[in-house]
Amino acid sequence: MDSGSPDRQLPVTERTRHHRLREQGSLDRDQLDAILDAGFLCHLGVTVDGNLLVVPTVYGSDGSTLYFHGSVASRSLVASPAAAVCVTVTHVDGLVLARSVFEHGVNYRSAMIFGVPTMVTDPEEKLAGLRCLTEHAAPGQWDYARRPSRKELAATSLLALSLDEASVKIRTGAPDDGDSEDAQLGLWAGVLPLRATWGDLEPDPLLPPATEAPAHLTKRVGTAAN
Amino acid sequence: MDSGSPDRQLPVTERTRHHRLREQGSLDRDQLDAILDAGFLCHLGVTVDGNLLVVPTVYGSDGSTLYFHGSVASRSLVASPAAAVCVTVTHVDGLVLARSVFEHGVNYRSAMIFGVPTMVTDPEEKLAGLRCLTEHAAPGQWDYARRPSRKELAATSLLALSLDEASVKIRTGAPDDGDSEDAQLGLWAGVLPLRATWGDLEPDPLLPPATEAPAHLTKRVGTAAN
Repeated sequence: MDSGSPDRQLPVTERTRHHRLREQGSLDRDQLDAILDAGFLCHLGVTVDGNLLVVPTVYGSDGSTLYFHGSVASRSLVASPAAAVCVTVTHVDGLVLARSVFEHGVNYRSAMIFGVPTMVTDPEEKLAGLRCLTEHAAPGQWDYARRPSRKELAATSLLALSLDEASVKIRTGAPDDGDSEDAQLGLWAGVLPLRATWGDLEPDPLLPPATEAPAHLTKRVGTAAN
Repeated sequence: MDSGSPDRQLPVTERTRHHRLREQGSLDRDQLDAILDAGFLCHLGVTVDGNLLVVPTVYGSDGSTLYFHGSVASRSLVASPAAAVCVTVTHVDGLVLARSVFEHGVNYRSAMIFGVPTMVTDPEEKLAGLRCLTEHAAPGQWDYARRPSRKELAATSLLALSLDEASVKIRTGAPDDGDSEDAQLGLWAGVLPLRATWGDLEPDPLLPPATEAPAHLTKRVGTAAN
């Protein structure tokens, strides 16, 4: 991978060093940002009462901090400020169909972030973090929908995780066995791409019929989702 | 959620009990199978040298066992047979756009599987597991592509994880605030669906131009991917 300019490099740590498949690894901060910007759902790994859990949850990123949240009753969020977590964001771009089963694989973009999250308690910082998270997944909705009340804010745990210790892996392109002896087998090989697209808006059945969807939502219909 | 017939119920354990959002939780074995059948990429949570990692990896399921694999050099796979893991499979179906920011959410189908994986060493079982995994992600390719050689088999770690301890969560449908006082705000609310679709086949540039793609691949183009 292109490793980018030195000032946009992520630091190498024991956890972010790429032990294998080095050609897929990257410490380019811009690639980290691009992967986080392209998604809104992460898998949060956290140990709760000795049990390892991998929980899908929504996130937002402001380029230096990842925010994620949940009810204050949530097991994984109550536990995670005390413990190191790993947050992984993955976009699957296609199946790599090689001449041999052994060379089959997946085209993907993935980021892993390591650290100990902190609970955001300052009201102003909490509101800013929730805005970041909301606008990341649903741009335009923070200004359109009703914002959180004091009671709702109190019922929400917001966690902040620094993006300082992170690692990126990317695979793109054709299978790797095009110049191997398996190429003589005469088999088709290539990529079956996977596309994520926003579909047509589905109005809440309880909505008055004349209610029009705002432009910040209608303009997403039919566009790529990652 | 519909909890299904009693004989298709997953057992409740300390880890699979739904602590919150019970209405989204399910112990229906058929729903677990459906979620696993609809995908091929999981997030494997494992502790390696004291570090929690969440690794995206390909899986296959035969309805009672989940298989996943990797190079024998992979850190996470070498460590995981010794330790309990959590494997999570998530399909994102759309953004839930409510009248209030607080009620925003995601429509999704997610399965979490807990257990201690075993390394598959018996050659016949290993071949069967790899076939399951390959056919799960890329149906038709096991019979079409060149199968693993003895050397390739030796270079692959295959892990098996029982599906006995698993938990399912699903959210579908409209936002929850259609009958709240926020409905008086006159805002649009509903769902922005996310569709995953297989795109047009991309032939390996190294392929002789006349090479035709097999029917088991061409028939997937344009179909739903989860």
